[in-house]
Amino acid sequence: MKQTIIGVMGPGAGASDSDIRMAEELGTLIAREGWVTLSGGRNTGVMDAVNRGAKSANGLTIGILPSRESDKTSTYVDVPIVTDMGSARNYINVLSSDIVIACGMSAGTASEVALALGAVKPVLLLGCSDTAVAFFGEIGGGLVQVVNSPGQAIRVCRGFVSELA
Amino acid sequence: MKQTIIGVMGPGAGASDSDIRMAEELGTLIAREGWVTLSGGRNTGVMDAVNRGAKSANGLTIGILPSRESDKTSTYVDVPIVTDMGSARNYINVLSSDIVIACGMSAGTASEVALALGAVKPVLLLGCSDTAVAFFGEIGGGLVQVVNSPGQAIRVCRGFVSELA
Amino acid sequence: MKQTIIGVMGPGAGASDSDIRMAEELGTLIAREGWVTLSGGRNTGVMDAVNRGAKSANGLTIGILPSRESDKTSTYVDVPIVTDMGSARNYINVLSSDIVIACGMSAGTASEVALALGAVKPVLLLGCSDTAVAFFGEIGGGLVQVVNSPGQAIRVCRGFVSELA
Amino acid sequence: MKQTIIGVMGPGAGASDSDIRMAEELGTLIAREGWVTLSGGRNTGVMDAVNRGAKSANGLTIGILPSRESDKTSTYVDVPIVTDMGSARNYINVLSSDIVIACGMSAGTASEVALALGAVKPVLLLGCSDTAVAFFGEIGGGLVQVVNSPGQAIRVCRGFVSELA
Repeated sequence: MKQTIIGVMGPGAGASDSDIRMAEELGTLIAREGWVTLSGGRNTGVMDAVNRGAKSANGLTIGILPSRESDKTSTYVDVPIVTDMGSARNYINVLSSDIVIACGMSAGTASEVALALGAVKPVLLLGCSDTAVAFFGEIGGGLVQVVNSPGQAIRVCRGFVSELA
Repeated sequence: MKQTIIGVMGPGAGASDSDIRMAEELGTLIAREGWVTLSGGRNTGVMDAVNRGAKSANGLTIGILPSRESDKTSTYVDVPIVTDMGSARNYINVLSSDIVIACGMSAGTASEVALALGAVKPVLLLGCSDTAVAFFGEIGGGLVQVVNSPGQAIRVCRGFVSELA
Repeated sequence: MKQTIIGVMGPGAGASDSDIRMAEELGTLIAREGWVTLSGGRNTGVMDAVNRGAKSANGLTIGILPSRESDKTSTYVDVPIVTDMGSARNYINVLSSDIVIACGMSAGTASEVALALGAVKPVLLLGCSDTAVAFFGEIGGGLVQVVNSPGQAIRVCRGFVSELA
Repeated sequence: MKQTIIGVMGPGAGASDSDIRMAEELGTLIAREGWVTLSGGRNTGVMDAVNRGAKSANGLTIGILPSRESDKTSTYVDVPIVTDMGSARNYINVLSSDIVIACGMSAGTASEVALALGAVKPVLLLGCSDTAVAFFGEIGGGLVQVVNSPGQAIRVCRGFVSELA
């Protein structure tokens, strides 16, 4: 039976310490809810941190990988989905997630938020600049919500999950 | 930590009764080994049967879906990966599988076997015609093995899995 | 021999009159330079207008289509590339363009600008809001330039084209 | 206005001398008909040869590239479409072609023929083994035709083109 899947997107090598701390906490909290963590799957930045957090609470972790280089996959990913499609995999990331959480911002993360909005998926922005919030509010309207902590993100997700059920 | 992932490919609407029986048994046996079942994820033919078999033994099931139409997803899929990429998802199916088992044959299944061989993945052919066996032997050489039952497929997989470990 | 390819991205059904007028002029000017016009290929908004403009000056038009529905293809496209990959085709749009011009803004266009920046492609923003300009400046730095007219866009493109040559 | 697009698929590094001679002749004949040549776009084997042939007769050449490595693109390609999607681009190759001609056989070519048949595209087999012909006849039925020379391939294409018009 289909499980609840939360996508966490964010910078790789350019992630800040704060992005990484929040991503790890997000992963732990997602796992505690019994939800699946989906990410871009690489062993860097937000991707690695969210999977590490999820595994610390025995969650299931799915990574959608851009390339076949298995040495770039997070060791905390249980099921690597190997696309060999570069950033086209960003589209799969958002379509496969019931809710998308952007934890920090980068060009890749921005593409994921924009693709999510185009696909009419709810998006939570965590740790994003005022400029990013203003821009995505302009193109995404009511699909976008700003959250201030991993805990608040999870509370908003619970609302969506009970609606989906 | 990465789990062992067995991809089972085969016809959808055109599957024979024998294809479906073998796919269901494959799913059950894969789950009993503690492996993950990966398929094209739709609610028809070999895709539906292998997931049904896997869930009967409490296995984890991943479906790589060609479209966003959630009413065409097998209800036995735990984690639907939604690609919206039509048959381009066949490439993801094979790259994400440690071993590919073709259970029956169709144009879609043939594309998956050919893509697997191009990507240097081991392929097992189950329930395929002599013509299919001859053709894939011609283009795939030692990567292709013919198996005569789901049980034999699992025994061959065990050999690969112990090599990969 | 590889030709110079200018990608023009912009809203479909939501395009403003100004977006459409500028897109049509862009297409005409691109064609007059002897460059190829590449777009998302559909028969709506900026996509249709840029191809109409290019054909009015006998340019070559390439459309990267998201679906197999040929009745949604612009009649001004000479070579429809059919991806059946939904918005994953946005990644192909930007990788195949030497320069990306965003003519107006939408969720889809935003994903294209973000994917272009991630792929280190030069991006020109034409007819975009101050908020969009601020955001893409924040994530794209020197790759992003604001232009105020189709004519100015072409002059900037000429600079890049002479660098590429 | 949409042009007629003939896709020519075949082995890369593994192409035989005969495959290459026939591919070059195919390209020349396609160009003489005023049709567009579409291929996998790399600078090797059948892909390079068909583009070389087409350019010798001033045809338009489109290459659907698997990677961003521009030094692997045939110098005879006018418009490289850069997918960065590995062999998933094989699906785009066949969907974008009005008719698919397989000139020689390999795992990649086999995936293209199978994807074409799944997408209900006409396929011509040139220079393929009896085993390949038997297999694709088995899965493709009336969509598959065997041709014995580039000239015969073009005559069959003319029939399809007048039907499509």
